[in-house]
Amino acid sequence: MQVTMDTLVSLAKRRGFIFPGSEIYGGLANTWDYGPLGAQVKHNLKRAWWRFFIEQNPLNVGLDSAILMNKQVWVASGHVANFHDPMVDCRQCKARFRADKLIEEAAEAKGKSLVVDGLPFAEMERLMEELQIACPNCGARDFTNVRQFNMMFRTFQGVTEDAANEVYLRPETAQGIFVNFKNVQRTMRKKLPFGIGQFGKSFRNEITPGNFIFRTREFEQMELEFFCAPGEDEKWFAYWRQTCMDWLLSLGIKPDHLRFRDHAKEQLSHYSKATTDIEYRFPFGWGELLGVANRTDYDLKAHQEHSGENMMVQEEGQEPFIPYCIEPSIGADRLFLAVFADAYDEEEVAEGDTRVVLRLHPKLAPYQVAVLPLSKKLNEPAHRLYLDLIKTYSADYDETGSIGKRYRRQDEIGTPFCVTYDFESESDGQVTIRMRDSMEQVRIPIEGVRTWLDEQLQSSGATW
Amino acid sequence: MQVTMDTLVSLAKRRGFIFPGSEIYGGLANTWDYGPLGAQVKHNLKRAWWRFFIEQNPLNVGLDSAILMNKQVWVASGHVANFHDPMVDCRQCKARFRADKLIEEAAEAKGKSLVVDGLPFAEMERLMEELQIACPNCGARDFTNVRQFNMMFRTFQGVTEDAANEVYLRPETAQGIFVNFKNVQRTMRKKLPFGIGQFGKSFRNEITPGNFIFRTREFEQMELEFFCAPGEDEKWFAYWRQTCMDWLLSLGIKPDHLRFRDHAKEQLSHYSKATTDIEYRFPFGWGELLGVANRTDYDLKAHQEHSGENMMVQEEGQEPFIPYCIEPSIGADRLFLAVFADAYDEEEVAEGDTRVVLRLHPKLAPYQVAVLPLSKKLNEPAHRLYLDLIKTYSADYDETGSIGKRYRRQDEIGTPFCVTYDFESESDGQVTIRMRDSMEQVRIPIEGVRTWLDEQLQSSGATW
Repeated sequence: MQVTMDTLVSLAKRRGFIFPGSEIYGGLANTWDYGPLGAQVKHNLKRAWWRFFIEQNPLNVGLDSAILMNKQVWVASGHVANFHDPMVDCRQCKARFRADKLIEEAAEAKGKSLVVDGLPFAEMERLMEELQIACPNCGARDFTNVRQFNMMFRTFQGVTEDAANEVYLRPETAQGIFVNFKNVQRTMRKKLPFGIGQFGKSFRNEITPGNFIFRTREFEQMELEFFCAPGEDEKWFAYWRQTCMDWLLSLGIKPDHLRFRDHAKEQLSHYSKATTDIEYRFPFGWGELLGVANRTDYDLKAHQEHSGENMMVQEEGQEPFIPYCIEPSIGADRLFLAVFADAYDEEEVAEGDTRVVLRLHPKLAPYQVAVLPLSKKLNEPAHRLYLDLIKTYSADYDETGSIGKRYRRQDEIGTPFCVTYDFESESDGQVTIRMRDSMEQVRIPIEGVRTWLDEQLQSSGATW
Repeated sequence: MQVTMDTLVSLAKRRGFIFPGSEIYGGLANTWDYGPLGAQVKHNLKRAWWRFFIEQNPLNVGLDSAILMNKQVWVASGHVANFHDPMVDCRQCKARFRADKLIEEAAEAKGKSLVVDGLPFAEMERLMEELQIACPNCGARDFTNVRQFNMMFRTFQGVTEDAANEVYLRPETAQGIFVNFKNVQRTMRKKLPFGIGQFGKSFRNEITPGNFIFRTREFEQMELEFFCAPGEDEKWFAYWRQTCMDWLLSLGIKPDHLRFRDHAKEQLSHYSKATTDIEYRFPFGWGELLGVANRTDYDLKAHQEHSGENMMVQEEGQEPFIPYCIEPSIGADRLFLAVFADAYDEEEVAEGDTRVVLRLHPKLAPYQVAVLPLSKKLNEPAHRLYLDLIKTYSADYDETGSIGKRYRRQDEIGTPFCVTYDFESESDGQVTIRMRDSMEQVRIPIEGVRTWLDEQLQSSGATW
């Protein structure tokens, strides 16, 4: 089924997955707080990424670099000079827009497809005239010229707010990896090819954030920079392109909701030789979920030039050279949204009776198991079982309302297995396990619950 | 043994635990990047915290709130008005210092112990005169008056840098919990007592950061806010005070390197009824590792007043009231430093032969196991075993240098178990496991390695 964004946002808020940020103060433009269940899922996603891309990969190692970095990093990377959005203001209502987006939308409304990114500002201004673009807010056709807006958040470290103390919040985690390339290579005694990956917060002062957690100013990236010899880059690009797709599928995302989009030559960033997005069919349309870019030797070379640090490696019998870099990069928040949307289902279980069920992968669900006593009289032994299970699993306990209602609650938050403790459990030492997806039930001995759960979680197809 | 900071910093850098931040650009005052091994340990520590304080605790739930919050949050919390350090400048050399620290150090040098925090600025100026304090940098006695310096990092969200768009980087994660109190309580249908916990980055523009990762401007907190009825607060304060100590001990920190320090009445923050630090004996002396504070109803009440949102709970047969809050708060970076320092050991294994061994808890070590082929001829089957083990464990593989050298390398990074694949392994299907701490060796069947490792990890005393 195709779920709407409204349904997702509402479920997320109602069941403790995601709340609007600073909500009691009227919010703060497009910031979001992960509630108890959302935090659990997001941690599970980050752990899945770390397991798959770092711990389980014999070529890769991890990193956790600081958000605040020396300003020269962003001079060298090109962000100070180039990390701009073109913006225009409406002179009438003072609303501010991205010029490229206004033009692309206006063109699309007329059935044309334009790539505006990278055009000179004068050309954008001409297109705005030609397409007779009006302010989406007030309808006036009275815009300022197109101007540059650097998307890095700026702050001051230290006690005086002067240029010497100016620092930026990182707009990507990747540069933290590049500047540590030699430190990592030397201390871990790595030979090419090898990768360095990390996850963490990045910040971009987007003019128009939106679509819930799809585009936010504060967001979490999971990035791998994979270094190889020039000449091997195309092979590794193909490898990571496919490996990323396989990983997304292993998270339980439906194959027909994912597609590759190879960038055309004119769409490529200045540092990239080739880029492929893996797009997900979000409720608002296809959108970038993950990007694989062939960054060539652009970044290491730039840092070598700016810092004077030697970024070359030497392989047996060869001249020293600067490695090429393949970058698979994914936003943890976008991945959350994709997994959340993909898991959402409404199922008619009887005439006029529909259940909402979140078909999350068992290893990604906020709770792997819930314990439900059938009657208040059974609360005590059921709670004991719950206390035993939380030693190992993320588990919930619920003793309120009818058992049918409790199953539906667990369905809605994606709990794959419910353990029901009933009157016979005391005498026969068995419990009923009800499965979220099939609603089938099995009866097994209490002391066998852990083994049964382990088998289910292991057989769920996830290797991470 | 008592390790020095120099030894730790040097080992951390040499073996890929922690590098100076932005090092190739000359660094950025006291920022640090966690290298491959450090990132692994830090993730393990955060996971241990999350397991123990959130998933394994039947009363608590998690959260992951945004770093950027509405400015009103910090007005309500008192940070805009009160989160200041008193600073003075040396008029001669322009160096800047914390006035309270200068006075405390000068007093201590004369054998006196002064608590300066909270004194009026005029009194601080008088004490600086009285103690004849000179600039530690140039020796002059020519200071400016004491002035306030707000420690919150300031930036601008959106496209104009005006007061309306001013935001702060959060100086603590706690407020993200307080503003979500009602959202969490309602969606998770929680009754008192219950806790909400999260970890994440916080930022404080410290005038004098230092001692490696002990005090940094960017740091990671792990905070639990535990809500209870007034009148029950002292009981829960005592509970968390002891529970936190037990948890630190379960991480393998030596009991005589930890102590409680209960704050005297005059040392308490404005919001606190009682505070206890758990101090660790760092190489530079005893320092705060973890704090447990009875924050009373201060924060929820402040947010109720400022936001107009009702923060009261109603219990059966009682008038609505604002809950009290007990806060166990720990810095992940400080915990890393404590665990790292505590694990460091030098041991004389033979006359004139000393090994460095990092006695990290097996579940906290960067690698739980390393696979070492005894000869190059055995690389292939050994690497196969390694590829099997990384499906489940964080594992290393090393085929370079003598076996003795490789054992020492693994000792130095804390790997608890080394699996050596030798010439007999091919024929008898057995490998030798060498234990880091005792250096004892056992020989077991290859197919039994996983079970053996699982038993060792489970019997290592950790419940998290």
